[in-house]
Amino acid sequence: MAGNTFGTLFKLTTFGESHGQAMGGVVDGCPAGLTLDLSAIQEELARRRPGQSSLTTSRKENDELTWLSGMVERDGHMVTTGAPMGFSVANAAARPADYDHLKDTFRPSHADFTYEAKYGLRDIRGGGRASARETVSRVAGGAIARQFLSTLGVQVGAYVERVQDISIPLPPSFHSRDEVDAHPVRCPHPETAARMADRIAEVKKAGDTVGGAIVMVARDVPSGWGEPVFDRLHADLAKAMWSLPATKALELGSGLSGTLMKGSEHNDKFVNRGSRIGTATNRSGGIQGGISNGEDIVMRIGFKPVATVLQPGESVDRKGNKITLEGRGRHDPCVLPRAVPLVEAMACLVLADHALRQRATRLTFGA
Amino acid sequence: MAGNTFGTLFKLTTFGESHGQAMGGVVDGCPAGLTLDLSAIQEELARRRPGQSSLTTSRKENDELTWLSGMVERDGHMVTTGAPMGFSVANAAARPADYDHLKDTFRPSHADFTYEAKYGLRDIRGGGRASARETVSRVAGGAIARQFLSTLGVQVGAYVERVQDISIPLPPSFHSRDEVDAHPVRCPHPETAARMADRIAEVKKAGDTVGGAIVMVARDVPSGWGEPVFDRLHADLAKAMWSLPATKALELGSGLSGTLMKGSEHNDKFVNRGSRIGTATNRSGGIQGGISNGEDIVMRIGFKPVATVLQPGESVDRKGNKITLEGRGRHDPCVLPRAVPLVEAMACLVLADHALRQRATRLTFGA
Amino acid sequence: MAGNTFGTLFKLTTFGESHGQAMGGVVDGCPAGLTLDLSAIQEELARRRPGQSSLTTSRKENDELTWLSGMVERDGHMVTTGAPMGFSVANAAARPADYDHLKDTFRPSHADFTYEAKYGLRDIRGGGRASARETVSRVAGGAIARQFLSTLGVQVGAYVERVQDISIPLPPSFHSRDEVDAHPVRCPHPETAARMADRIAEVKKAGDTVGGAIVMVARDVPSGWGEPVFDRLHADLAKAMWSLPATKALELGSGLSGTLMKGSEHNDKFVNRGSRIGTATNRSGGIQGGISNGEDIVMRIGFKPVATVLQPGESVDRKGNKITLEGRGRHDPCVLPRAVPLVEAMACLVLADHALRQRATRLTFGA
Amino acid sequence: MAGNTFGTLFKLTTFGESHGQAMGGVVDGCPAGLTLDLSAIQEELARRRPGQSSLTTSRKENDELTWLSGMVERDGHMVTTGAPMGFSVANAAARPADYDHLKDTFRPSHADFTYEAKYGLRDIRGGGRASARETVSRVAGGAIARQFLSTLGVQVGAYVERVQDISIPLPPSFHSRDEVDAHPVRCPHPETAARMADRIAEVKKAGDTVGGAIVMVARDVPSGWGEPVFDRLHADLAKAMWSLPATKALELGSGLSGTLMKGSEHNDKFVNRGSRIGTATNRSGGIQGGISNGEDIVMRIGFKPVATVLQPGESVDRKGNKITLEGRGRHDPCVLPRAVPLVEAMACLVLADHALRQRATRLTFGA
Repeated sequence: MAGNTFGTLFKLTTFGESHGQAMGGVVDGCPAGLTLDLSAIQEELARRRPGQSSLTTSRKENDELTWLSGMVERDGHMVTTGAPMGFSVANAAARPADYDHLKDTFRPSHADFTYEAKYGLRDIRGGGRASARETVSRVAGGAIARQFLSTLGVQVGAYVERVQDISIPLPPSFHSRDEVDAHPVRCPHPETAARMADRIAEVKKAGDTVGGAIVMVARDVPSGWGEPVFDRLHADLAKAMWSLPATKALELGSGLSGTLMKGSEHNDKFVNRGSRIGTATNRSGGIQGGISNGEDIVMRIGFKPVATVLQPGESVDRKGNKITLEGRGRHDPCVLPRAVPLVEAMACLVLADHALRQRATRLTFGA
Repeated sequence: MAGNTFGTLFKLTTFGESHGQAMGGVVDGCPAGLTLDLSAIQEELARRRPGQSSLTTSRKENDELTWLSGMVERDGHMVTTGAPMGFSVANAAARPADYDHLKDTFRPSHADFTYEAKYGLRDIRGGGRASARETVSRVAGGAIARQFLSTLGVQVGAYVERVQDISIPLPPSFHSRDEVDAHPVRCPHPETAARMADRIAEVKKAGDTVGGAIVMVARDVPSGWGEPVFDRLHADLAKAMWSLPATKALELGSGLSGTLMKGSEHNDKFVNRGSRIGTATNRSGGIQGGISNGEDIVMRIGFKPVATVLQPGESVDRKGNKITLEGRGRHDPCVLPRAVPLVEAMACLVLADHALRQRATRLTFGA
Repeated sequence: MAGNTFGTLFKLTTFGESHGQAMGGVVDGCPAGLTLDLSAIQEELARRRPGQSSLTTSRKENDELTWLSGMVERDGHMVTTGAPMGFSVANAAARPADYDHLKDTFRPSHADFTYEAKYGLRDIRGGGRASARETVSRVAGGAIARQFLSTLGVQVGAYVERVQDISIPLPPSFHSRDEVDAHPVRCPHPETAARMADRIAEVKKAGDTVGGAIVMVARDVPSGWGEPVFDRLHADLAKAMWSLPATKALELGSGLSGTLMKGSEHNDKFVNRGSRIGTATNRSGGIQGGISNGEDIVMRIGFKPVATVLQPGESVDRKGNKITLEGRGRHDPCVLPRAVPLVEAMACLVLADHALRQRATRLTFGA
Repeated sequence: MAGNTFGTLFKLTTFGESHGQAMGGVVDGCPAGLTLDLSAIQEELARRRPGQSSLTTSRKENDELTWLSGMVERDGHMVTTGAPMGFSVANAAARPADYDHLKDTFRPSHADFTYEAKYGLRDIRGGGRASARETVSRVAGGAIARQFLSTLGVQVGAYVERVQDISIPLPPSFHSRDEVDAHPVRCPHPETAARMADRIAEVKKAGDTVGGAIVMVARDVPSGWGEPVFDRLHADLAKAMWSLPATKALELGSGLSGTLMKGSEHNDKFVNRGSRIGTATNRSGGIQGGISNGEDIVMRIGFKPVATVLQPGESVDRKGNKITLEGRGRHDPCVLPRAVPLVEAMACLVLADHALRQRATRLTFGA
């Protein structure tokens, strides 16, 4: 109930604070017999890692993942046993003393005030549990989920569609990781990527930050995943995306533009695709009545500019006295490139969970 | 796991199909000692009821709520005992035979295909469990949650901000129920309401449908509600809103427009409001780090035009053969006026749940 | 969290008070496509019904079950759709006024005092939610679970092994319902049954009550059901049995006698049974490491004598003043015959839940 | 759902295999502001540690606990922040190669066969996840729960009442840790303790094992903890106790002997104790209607002799061929002394959970 566990059958529990001993977590419910590619998991963490390019924070973390349980060796590969998989990631670059000056102050649009309101005390070191560093554990868990989904043929990809007002001039679609990672900004449209990088460099120089939008596409999700009424597949995906630190907007399929259309224009006609029944258009975003229909699942997540700016700002201290905060420390001018693996990780966790939930649906599984 | 229960401490379980025996549910976890106003609950159902104005479907349902358990009389009022509150609502206008022609066909953008893909069979009568009629149980549960929240001073209101492209020319704010319900379209801005009503009438005549946007504002929510990391207050609200039948887009606080700003512009400065610490602006939408900060919680939910149109349309049958569907039956040209109480109900359920969860947070409750 | 829901994938939520409007509940998570025998479910309720023989309370209830949702007709039979199955049972013989004299008193070994301590108020009518009448909903839910288990070849049976000190002189084993129900005391050993009936008649005459023990045997449970570490199959069965109103003791397999043996004597040797690996003895009671091994699951549940006696007794009122309680009303001299279907229902609910949970365990289901 | 998490509001998730990288877990939901005594927690682990006396296995483990998150320093003490508390314990004495000979065999009354039936593969190293070493994480979690309960005045104690047929000749009662730990057998009755130790030494010499019974008493539990209907306080305690590796029997209050009494003899009369209403006897074992009544909560847990004996025994291999198993390795002749802290840990986890759940029960907490 304390909100550190995600999922119902495929579950991830995370722990750790930005400048504490270690980050970590437990993946529970991953089916037994899954052959793991541990280096691929480590690569996912590298995509989220700070300091990977000049576009991100200069905090350096190796983010080396240690698996503590839940797997055995079989023929030279690690295989899941069905037991919970504990893991940890050290906090190498922790500098808790950097934050002493924040002890009695509340940084604007951070969680300083609300954590103190909730708990009566807070861990001031780098935002403590509220730090985006917490997401490293999500990437580890999501990577396991992704490898499980691979065995079912499901692919999940995300990319930066927009930075502030600079946007890809094409509708959302699936892009391979190679295309996405070709540019450090993780936008698969080269000209747009270049413009985005310029904007981020400019903003960084000014000690400021920008947001934008990420598109997530899940391909080849079998029809039938998702539970009515409350646990619709997109409701669980929505919760997943809104649990990320900077989400401000979310759209599914036709999204906002769909709300401007008429029903007769918006409906997706069913068509016979030979091996399966599909739809001629995909305004539904791959989900109807909360259940996947076999088309691409398409979501767009809008992110705000992160709150940590290097410009001085006004605030109040714990007693309500006005103070001026100096901007200092390391910061991310635009989190979107690093948020791409987070979006993918959360989508993988939701899909893996519903893949297992679907198994309980019919009298004879597989029928 | 089958997705028919919402909430963790304040829980609602619902059951019932559009044209089955009855709709109903169980509210579990409502604290003991709450004096109930049962007629106010019935009024909430009246706001959702079909046939309440010429803008909605002509299906007529009294939607009379029967409470089966969980309350006792004290001094002439019904009071909760802490036991689960079962309830049912009869399906008076059920016409199952109306749907026989749909047995082998999949209506576009309905859940016909996906339910069959999931379960191997489906209840064709009016969409069965996938029907929006299911939401009657949510309104009943949400009304109990609202009465609990009232004892804590929390108010939850929603209104229609936009129908297709006709929108209130003012930023979101709290409106009293009297203002909202003054016009059957449930838009508190009279000129806009009139234009919306015209548009809906026009669309209805054409046998078509339109969507739009609803704004939800929760006032006087104490600071400290919401759980990091996964169960952020807005993540749970997001799941709630995305569990509604026609949601396509969701924004919190500054929303999409916030994703276009710079961090230095977007941050909400803290200010001393005398009795409490507040923020000068509310781009955060009342939630920071997933926890309420005492400012208004503001969300905007975009709805698609509903899929049932009275125009003929193409589809396929179960075997993939092309067919033509005639539009017939009763339909809602624009669900937004009736969706206002749904949005409020879901918001109340989330807030009541987090009100109780907050009680487990500190060593000494109340400290 | 309020304790009115049981199970994780196959879930039963119950509501209702002894003398309230109605008893009822929701079965959620039953797989779609199960052909139901509704009259067999009604028969289960008849086995629990008060007034079925001279050995039980004289309260008369028809306990007619009404199903409200979750099933459709297919070829003349009702079939589950995968939607939640709501149900209700009217309280025909409710006599709330019978309990007015208890308003300010606490009956010994009842839940009067503890409910008031917990909730600050209580429903005095027949014990309200604490009444054993609540178990009628469990029998309905358990009957659905049993029909699901039947499709997997699993049988669950229980019988009265002991009334006070009168016990069957044979070790526990599976007995058919015909054998068990041949005598109203539900003991399949005729001579012992006759002695038990005499004892109950004698005790009833004295206005007193007696307890005893029930044995539960589940046959042909496939190996592999149950989850380490906390949700061991027997841990969930234990919780189920201890949730019944009068449980005081529980044993698995060799039980108490096993705790007196040496390890070398107690171990169950594995043997080759041709089609499967079995054990020569079954001191483990069909469960090893929390997981079923294919042998009979055998539990013994000890029940106390129920607290409602017709003899006068001392107690205190709400203010702590000494009072004398007159015994009056209808009462059950020995609940064991009526508890047999409860034990079976709870066992069926646990087994159905773990049947579904097992489906999520391996990479390829069925492999 | 995979069974590695215990509790609803105060939650413990555990991971780790006997001879894997590390044991560990996450405590989630502990209220913020609790001052921790970390050395007291380490002492709890020392009580469970193998090799602590000649009565236990000779496997030596330091069981040093590392806390990874969830606490900050305040005035020289560690204080909980409300964030999840990750921890790990290294497996210093792991000797995985010791188990290679078991690769294709199923040890009698171990979980070898059932794990393989469930998962299709198993970690053969020392029983893997099925090893009792897993309980080290429970003791860590239980110790946090205990420190939370201390702030509410609740004390939880357990002791060895019986080894095989050697039993304390007095009824169950609360004993201080000093009394219990005065003898390594953890029986607070010196003469009985000495006889138990002799029996264990004798059995050890023969390469055999014995079981017995442990009594658990929780004192000063406030009235009102526990949830009807399914989550009765004793149902959750029962699940906790039955989740321990060797449980075969459980009794509450009067237990088995209570099932032999008449209702008129068994009822606990209420009496005025001045500051509170109590009961003259405590056959209910401190719980009525599933809710604590303020009296001592008393349970007796029967343990079987553990399955690992050092005598040769028959079994079958994976193909069903008869084999002879040699007894070898390190083993515990009697686990009861080391099980005392486990019983306490599980009881503390249940009580801490219900302490928090009780906070959601009434309209105004504390009223």
